[in-house]
Amino acid sequence: MAYRTTPERQQRDQALREHILDCALDQVRAGGFNALTMSSLANAAGVATGSLYRHFSGKGELAAEVFVRATRIEVDKLRSQFTGTGTASERLQRGLTLFAARAWHSRQLAYALIAEPVDPEVDNQRLRYREAYAELYADLIRAGRDDGSFTAEHIPLTAACLVGAVAEALVGPLSPQARAARASGLPSDSLESVTRTMVRFSLRALGAKESIR
Amino acid sequence: MAYRTTPERQQRDQALREHILDCALDQVRAGGFNALTMSSLANAAGVATGSLYRHFSGKGELAAEVFVRATRIEVDKLRSQFTGTGTASERLQRGLTLFAARAWHSRQLAYALIAEPVDPEVDNQRLRYREAYAELYADLIRAGRDDGSFTAEHIPLTAACLVGAVAEALVGPLSPQARAARASGLPSDSLESVTRTMVRFSLRALGAKESIR
Repeated sequence: MAYRTTPERQQRDQALREHILDCALDQVRAGGFNALTMSSLANAAGVATGSLYRHFSGKGELAAEVFVRATRIEVDKLRSQFTGTGTASERLQRGLTLFAARAWHSRQLAYALIAEPVDPEVDNQRLRYREAYAELYADLIRAGRDDGSFTAEHIPLTAACLVGAVAEALVGPLSPQARAARASGLPSDSLESVTRTMVRFSLRALGAKESIR
Repeated sequence: MAYRTTPERQQRDQALREHILDCALDQVRAGGFNALTMSSLANAAGVATGSLYRHFSGKGELAAEVFVRATRIEVDKLRSQFTGTGTASERLQRGLTLFAARAWHSRQLAYALIAEPVDPEVDNQRLRYREAYAELYADLIRAGRDDGSFTAEHIPLTAACLVGAVAEALVGPLSPQARAARASGLPSDSLESVTRTMVRFSLRALGAKESIR
C-alpha cells in the first residue's frame, strides 16, 4: 500500500509546512524578522524544533520563504491596480495609494519586507522581487506612453527608479524610530502626506501632464 | 616604561587594523563581499586568522567596516559636487554624473555597497548611510528651492525618493548578470544612457524648469 501512504505523508508534510509558515508570518508581522527564531517559532507552531529543521534548513531559508509569501501578495495587489481601468496616470495614483495604505496598516511587516537588516537569503529575494515590481511599473509606463499620460524614455531604468523611490519613501516613516516617535505623540509623517509626496514625485518624474490631483 | 609601551602597542595595533581593512577592501573590490572570508583575508594580509579575530569579531563586523570606509568616500565626493558652484540644478547633474561614473569604474565594489546580499551588519550601515545621502539631497533641494531650480514640497521625503531612485537605477546595470552580459558582448546599458535617465528622472521629479541638458 506504499503507493497510498507516500502521497498522504506528503500532504501531511505540506499541511504542516503551511502551518509553520503561517505562524512565522504572524511572528514577523508582530516583531519583524528579528522576532523570528527557530525556538520561538517551534513553540508558536506547537512542533519540536527538530521538526522545523526537517522543513527548513534554518532561519535564513524560513525568513526568505516568509518574505516571498508576503511580498507576492503586495505585488499582486499592485498589479491589479496598475492593470485596472482608467488612464495610466490614474492607475499609478491608485496603485501607490493602496501600496502605501497597506504598508501603513502593517507597518512592522512592511518595514521587515522593505528594509529590515536580515539574512542574505532575504536580501536575495528582495533583489528578485524588486525586479518583479519594476516589471509592473515598466508595463504601466508603456501603457502611459500609449495613452498620453507619460513621456518616459528609457522605460526599464525609469521603472527601476520608481521602485527605488517608492521603497525609500516608505523606509523612514515605517522605521522603528518613526513608530516609536509616533507612539510617544511626537510629530510624524501622516499616511496622506507620504502618499501625496510619493505620487507627486512619481507623476512628475514620468512627465505626467497633470501633476498633483 | 609601561607609559611608553602602551601607546606604542596601540599604534601598532591601529596600523595593523588599517592594513587589514585595506586588504579587505581590495578583496571586496575584486569579488564583492562574497569573496571576503576570514581565511582568505588572513592570507592576503599576511597575518594569522587568530590575529584577525583580535581586531574584528567576525565577517559581519569586518564587512560593515569596509562598507563604511568605502561609502564615506562616495558621500564626500557627492557632497563636494552638491555644495560646489552653479545652480542647484547644475550641481545635481554634476553630482549624479560623478556618482554614476565612479560606480561604473568600480562596478563590483559599487554593487557590493549598494545591493549585494550580505550580513545584516552591512544592511544596518546601508540604512544609516542612505540617511546620510538623503541629507545631502535635502540640502541641495533646499538650495534649489531658494535659487529657483526646484519646486519640491516635502523635502525630506523627496530626498529619500531620490536616494532610492538613484540607487535602484544602478543596481541592474551593476549586477553580476549585467556584467556577465557585457563581458560576452551582449547589448547592455551604457554609462551615458544610465546617467542621462537618472538625471532626467531626478530633475523632472524635482520640478526643474529645464529638463534634460
